[in-house]
Amino acid sequence: MDYVVEVRIELKSGVLDAEGETVNKSLKLLGFPAKDVKTVKVYDITLEAGSEEDARKKAENAAKKLLANPVIQNYYVTPKKK
Amino acid sequence: MDYVVEVRIELKSGVLDAEGETVNKSLKLLGFPAKDVKTVKVYDITLEAGSEEDARKKAENAAKKLLANPVIQNYYVTPKKK
Repeated sequence: MDYVVEVRIELKSGVLDAEGETVNKSLKLLGFPAKDVKTVKVYDITLEAGSEEDARKKAENAAKKLLANPVIQNYYVTPKKK
Repeated sequence: MDYVVEVRIELKSGVLDAEGETVNKSLKLLGFPAKDVKTVKVYDITLEAGSEEDARKKAENAAKKLLANPVIQNYYVTPKKK
């Protein structure tokens, strides 16, 4: 069966989020009352798996091996309804 | 009061997601049973607002003016608990 799993990749706290900083400054210049902006990268992965738990495990494996950089990023894996 | 609003920016259907395609191919090469990968950009914005609804409206305005390209992208604005 096909499952959709969301892999959410965030920068660890203390790591400079250059894009977020830039967006924050731009929003302020446009008069928007932003105080802080954090960017997050999300991959919605459709994959074949035996169960939701199996899909979660496979996606977590993919996040660890390919999608996230564990030195500077945290990742969160959430199965979604297809 | 400070609110955190999530602005989620997705490519419209029919628009080529080059990064998603590349990740999909790489996952397959690694033996991962991926069928489709979609990339989503998320901005978690902390901002000053009078109410949750006010925060949502301000973030929607920011998404429209600065963060999303309405020709090729859809955006979804969701207030989150701080």
